[in-house]
Amino acid sequence: MLRTPAYAAAFPRAPLAQFEIERREPRPHDVLIDILFCGVCHSDIHQARDEWGGGIFPMVPGHEIVGTVAKTGSSVREWMPGDVVGVGTVVDSCRECDACLTGKEQYCERLTSFTYNGREQDGKTPTYGGYSTRITVDEKFVFRMPKSIPMKSAAPLLCAGVTTYSPLRHYGLEKGDRLAVAGLGGLGHMAVKFGRALGANVTVLSHSPTKRDDALRLGAVDFVLTQDGDSLRSVAREFDFLLDTVSAGHDYNPLLRLLRTDGTMIIVGVPGPTLIRPQSLIDRRRRLVGSMVGGVRETQEMLDFAGKQGIGADVEVIRIQDINKAFDRTVSGEVKYRFVIDMNSLAV
Amino acid sequence: MLRTPAYAAAFPRAPLAQFEIERREPRPHDVLIDILFCGVCHSDIHQARDEWGGGIFPMVPGHEIVGTVAKTGSSVREWMPGDVVGVGTVVDSCRECDACLTGKEQYCERLTSFTYNGREQDGKTPTYGGYSTRITVDEKFVFRMPKSIPMKSAAPLLCAGVTTYSPLRHYGLEKGDRLAVAGLGGLGHMAVKFGRALGANVTVLSHSPTKRDDALRLGAVDFVLTQDGDSLRSVAREFDFLLDTVSAGHDYNPLLRLLRTDGTMIIVGVPGPTLIRPQSLIDRRRRLVGSMVGGVRETQEMLDFAGKQGIGADVEVIRIQDINKAFDRTVSGEVKYRFVIDMNSLAV
Repeated sequence: MLRTPAYAAAFPRAPLAQFEIERREPRPHDVLIDILFCGVCHSDIHQARDEWGGGIFPMVPGHEIVGTVAKTGSSVREWMPGDVVGVGTVVDSCRECDACLTGKEQYCERLTSFTYNGREQDGKTPTYGGYSTRITVDEKFVFRMPKSIPMKSAAPLLCAGVTTYSPLRHYGLEKGDRLAVAGLGGLGHMAVKFGRALGANVTVLSHSPTKRDDALRLGAVDFVLTQDGDSLRSVAREFDFLLDTVSAGHDYNPLLRLLRTDGTMIIVGVPGPTLIRPQSLIDRRRRLVGSMVGGVRETQEMLDFAGKQGIGADVEVIRIQDINKAFDRTVSGEVKYRFVIDMNSLAV
Repeated sequence: MLRTPAYAAAFPRAPLAQFEIERREPRPHDVLIDILFCGVCHSDIHQARDEWGGGIFPMVPGHEIVGTVAKTGSSVREWMPGDVVGVGTVVDSCRECDACLTGKEQYCERLTSFTYNGREQDGKTPTYGGYSTRITVDEKFVFRMPKSIPMKSAAPLLCAGVTTYSPLRHYGLEKGDRLAVAGLGGLGHMAVKFGRALGANVTVLSHSPTKRDDALRLGAVDFVLTQDGDSLRSVAREFDFLLDTVSAGHDYNPLLRLLRTDGTMIIVGVPGPTLIRPQSLIDRRRRLVGSMVGGVRETQEMLDFAGKQGIGADVEVIRIQDINKAFDRTVSGEVKYRFVIDMNSLAV
């Protein structure tokens, strides 16, 4: 086994601190990756604080991983030492169920092995994420990173990127469609970039007037303050899609009313239980749908598309030693728009 | 104007009683219809009791209308006196908006003129429904009834029928799909019949064990008691579609968990606000969607399909004088499965 430094939460809500984990020696189909950057996802915080329950501790978060191949298993043909690669939210799945066979590994019917706070396919071995200096991953769950995007800016594509790209594609966003993006944070700012690149007219909905300039700079054509009833009413029934990235509790009904007939509201943030008025759905045959990250094929497709379009995240690079401060600043929305850890800070 | 006997609620929650309304003389594109049968829809009760608010009183309910053409306007070519015709939930719409131009008149962006408790296109004149002996309707909103179905059994197709048929078609139910129908009442029993005729394997979900035999007789292959946790768990992630016809308040989350990845739960009953766990949608990329009746074209398509398949409602015919008792029995679920008023009882 390969002793590897990491940052972990020892128990729910514990501050993250240095810790040592073991990575496996590459098996025939494995790739050992030296981690250079890892994005800080809001779900890292939810899980390190065990806000969703059932957390596996000690927990090493991180599922927006970019690095270089250090070593490959004997059967690996696709990857070579030195390749710049990524690892996202999933590191394995059963590969035999309907979901796996149709490229939806994140919905594996037996066991999705999430990159951290999960279990390997043996159902036992805990998985540890990217807040560490290296990781061993089956080659199927390794991605080729776009050369045109700096590694630090590309890391957040592996969760925030695919989480917003995947549902827009899956639910059929078309050129000229009107897309509302609720919340301008890590997910929201990627949604604006992808929405625009896919040809939509994007409007940002936010409760924070200070986000207006950034929304327009990122590619939105309009900005609506959600607590301004008149402004909201002025866009009632205007949108084909609404991508809701807000993870704090909020009322879905005023947002649903912004959709036209047959419009789709996509939930990718995970607030607590929320009241729905059935009429909000029935009146205009609206759809309220969920989506979780993306499958292997579409993650690579998203990375290739981002490379062609020059889409990366707006990031603030931090040292791993500043991770607890970064968690607090993420929760209070004080990041534009994604923290990315420079993993050299842990190696040194 | 044509003085016409009717049954009306004089004010919210008033018992229905005899009343006189005026129907207009046919304009060039109008059809005057002698009403023979009118179904009793649960929404007649919600509205007569003003449970959705904003009711227009006095109110003459009824939107499952079957009768014969008595007289046609000067420009009407499609209908002849004596034709057996139907009128459903909508009697007019703007005909110019996107929704109207694409056959979704029930979602008209300007004003859907609902058959009762609505307004004509002038925005003023109240509409009165089928609990009366005749009605004047624009020919576009008149349907040809299938000859193979008795008129009394065909009347409920005009709301309960199309309300269940339309979303199954719109959301893409396919042969061999597994369909769960929640609630076996007026809507539910039509959903079982249409689901089966469209080639699905239908399972009925009900809180009432007494519905088991009927569910199987109507065409379901399975029956699950919703308050039996073990039975519910045994069908977790089994269904492609779940059509929820229940109009009493209930928890959507255990029902959502019965859907497989990319499954769709369709709400056609109208309970009050309901708590949703976002995870119920995100975990398997599920869809929660609404649907309201159907458009003109698809209503005729549904009637033609019902005629070919021999699908009518299971009905209990009543006299109009028994309508208040029928309302109470509908609310307590004591009808198998639709009351239909023989309008001769009002004419005499």
